[in-house]
Amino acid sequence: MNGWAIFLSPYHQAVEELKVKFKSLRDQYQRSSKHTPIEFVTGRVKPMTSIQEKAKRKNIALESLHTEMQDIAGLRIVCQFVTDIDTIVDMLRSRNDITVMSERDYIKEKKSSGYRSYHMVIDYPVHTIEGTRHVLAEIQIRTMAMNFWATIEHSLNYKYSGEIPEHVKRRLVRAAEAAYNLDEEMSKIQDEVREAQSIITKRREENKGTYK
Amino acid sequence: MNGWAIFLSPYHQAVEELKVKFKSLRDQYQRSSKHTPIEFVTGRVKPMTSIQEKAKRKNIALESLHTEMQDIAGLRIVCQFVTDIDTIVDMLRSRNDITVMSERDYIKEKKSSGYRSYHMVIDYPVHTIEGTRHVLAEIQIRTMAMNFWATIEHSLNYKYSGEIPEHVKRRLVRAAEAAYNLDEEMSKIQDEVREAQSIITKRREENKGTYK
Amino acid sequence: MNGWAIFLSPYHQAVEELKVKFKSLRDQYQRSSKHTPIEFVTGRVKPMTSIQEKAKRKNIALESLHTEMQDIAGLRIVCQFVTDIDTIVDMLRSRNDITVMSERDYIKEKKSSGYRSYHMVIDYPVHTIEGTRHVLAEIQIRTMAMNFWATIEHSLNYKYSGEIPEHVKRRLVRAAEAAYNLDEEMSKIQDEVREAQSIITKRREENKGTYK
Amino acid sequence: MNGWAIFLSPYHQAVEELKVKFKSLRDQYQRSSKHTPIEFVTGRVKPMTSIQEKAKRKNIALESLHTEMQDIAGLRIVCQFVTDIDTIVDMLRSRNDITVMSERDYIKEKKSSGYRSYHMVIDYPVHTIEGTRHVLAEIQIRTMAMNFWATIEHSLNYKYSGEIPEHVKRRLVRAAEAAYNLDEEMSKIQDEVREAQSIITKRREENKGTYK
Repeated sequence: MNGWAIFLSPYHQAVEELKVKFKSLRDQYQRSSKHTPIEFVTGRVKPMTSIQEKAKRKNIALESLHTEMQDIAGLRIVCQFVTDIDTIVDMLRSRNDITVMSERDYIKEKKSSGYRSYHMVIDYPVHTIEGTRHVLAEIQIRTMAMNFWATIEHSLNYKYSGEIPEHVKRRLVRAAEAAYNLDEEMSKIQDEVREAQSIITKRREENKGTYK
Repeated sequence: MNGWAIFLSPYHQAVEELKVKFKSLRDQYQRSSKHTPIEFVTGRVKPMTSIQEKAKRKNIALESLHTEMQDIAGLRIVCQFVTDIDTIVDMLRSRNDITVMSERDYIKEKKSSGYRSYHMVIDYPVHTIEGTRHVLAEIQIRTMAMNFWATIEHSLNYKYSGEIPEHVKRRLVRAAEAAYNLDEEMSKIQDEVREAQSIITKRREENKGTYK
Repeated sequence: MNGWAIFLSPYHQAVEELKVKFKSLRDQYQRSSKHTPIEFVTGRVKPMTSIQEKAKRKNIALESLHTEMQDIAGLRIVCQFVTDIDTIVDMLRSRNDITVMSERDYIKEKKSSGYRSYHMVIDYPVHTIEGTRHVLAEIQIRTMAMNFWATIEHSLNYKYSGEIPEHVKRRLVRAAEAAYNLDEEMSKIQDEVREAQSIITKRREENKGTYK
Repeated sequence: MNGWAIFLSPYHQAVEELKVKFKSLRDQYQRSSKHTPIEFVTGRVKPMTSIQEKAKRKNIALESLHTEMQDIAGLRIVCQFVTDIDTIVDMLRSRNDITVMSERDYIKEKKSSGYRSYHMVIDYPVHTIEGTRHVLAEIQIRTMAMNFWATIEHSLNYKYSGEIPEHVKRRLVRAAEAAYNLDEEMSKIQDEVREAQSIITKRREENKGTYK
């Protein structure tokens, strides 16, 4: 196994373990009669070339990657409603298997691009065949509409190497507004929906069968 | 194994096999330098109690379930853009491991509730320990915004047993409009995005690491 | 995507689909009150370097790989008892989603090394984003004891590049005899076990929970 | 969710998390140039009816289940060689995300039935939507031959409700001897194999493709 594979191995392990842990929470909510604040959970390890590019751009030495680059391991928790995000944040802060290192609220302070999301950097210990290793992971918490928009913006940023032309930027801002409006409309029917979902969950107890 | 478990077993198998087949297509698109029309694929078998309720409501005899109830096995293919839906439909029509039995286009002819989606009913043969069995499956093809809205409407319909009050219906129609606007804005930046994504995919060839 | 990735893609798809199909059979047996002839199912695509080495050794042109090299896609079905192997072979012959191209019975005609296993080469069609592709796949059917031994022999063969020293060969033959004896002892308690397992399965119907 | 589902939920979570953690170790060994002491990992939660039967038989009150019944959550780690078992035991003892509560060595002190296996009971904390919960889990560590035999004995014990007839018992003891002999023969070629496997792993670094 070459150097990069050895370096990235604990990050892969952290992502796998945290995905299982966060998906367990979602399943527990779904089986309870409570509203489920977690719609789905994804995770990834940053590809080697992206790490190298970012290290160069941010002037990070390879020996400092494990402390200076905080999103090598990335988890994403996607919610139905904006208010679900607070629920998730509180829950993550109260766990003792992770340590919250820092937080950024890009929902209250939206970026000028239109980007909205809640970011947390955590420290997570993994047990490897060489002993315990601490890795940093970034958790992004957002609604489905925020996620849809962010996926598109990420593609465009990548295409134009961060220099998106003005006419495309304006389109993106308009799309961000449409995503924001969808979140707003959803908030308004939220209480109806929450009550509805807890009824469904109760009826579903004996019989399984949701899309998954 | 009781009667229901025996009855549902080939439906579970069909859903598992079709999920693998459709996810393979998504992976092939992602590895090619083409735009990927498939964002994600889900599947479910309708729960027994829902089958019983629907059979009663639609007056379907239990002996006719396998021909009269077409959504016991359900697959859902979710796309980024509205135009991706046509690509998927064409692709499904051209396969010879499934037989398309009927199609309904609820995008061109939106339901009064605001529901939009493309539906296909297919015949799919599964090989069981008792021999070959033909099952019907319903495939729903929709964008992420259509999917988000439909999930909410489904919950509310369930809560009010199909009788959603007028003030909630109006809210839902407004949310459907917000979802439609998001799709419209997305269409406008689609060509930019498509080109962007094919560039990303090419760069990603040597190094893996998307959220999944 | 480079040439090898494109070439191997339909093989990966075939392996994924066949794993799901064969595992479905195992699950159906486990839920029925019958003895389950399938203990577990595994699959792999031959690594590129192994394909290249074998092509060189067997003098196969790269253009003929898809017809001349029959084990690029490999499936393995592992059974509890020797007699289960016949059950699997009959079942595979009767399916119409695969075409059996050839068979070799290394159980009746054990190799001099001690190797025992049943081999089938099949033709299997996969539906790709470029249309239908036919791929060859090799299915190996064996007991757990045969599988244990074969894993070890494979490692040793690899180590010595096919030239295992005499003293190691003798050890391997003795281990093959121990594996054969275990299969023999197991056959003798087989009828007891079969009856026992069908009783367990019945009791387990209402409550799930086997190691898996 | 009824009472049993609520009670068993943290056990399911513990099994899922520990499976991911132990499988990570196996993957790390496979990617290193070391011999891999873990062949495969399985897990299960004891079915409700088995818990009830055992509680009755052992006279355990339902309120004491979480402390008195130690195998509601069960993990199994299966090894190639007998000496691998010690490696696993040492590794488990050194982790600080689990607490070893007790150990039983049924390899040094084989049961009269022929049963061989190493058992550990651990305490493992899970983070649920209700807060942290400590659950007990039993880890069984054994070779493939021990595992094969134990699976059969378990089926027979179940069939005869623990009262296996004398002639079947004698057969089982003979099969246990055959399994023991297979382990002995394997030990003798172990060093050859270990060296062989580390060579394979190194060659495999650039190109993936083992049966899995």
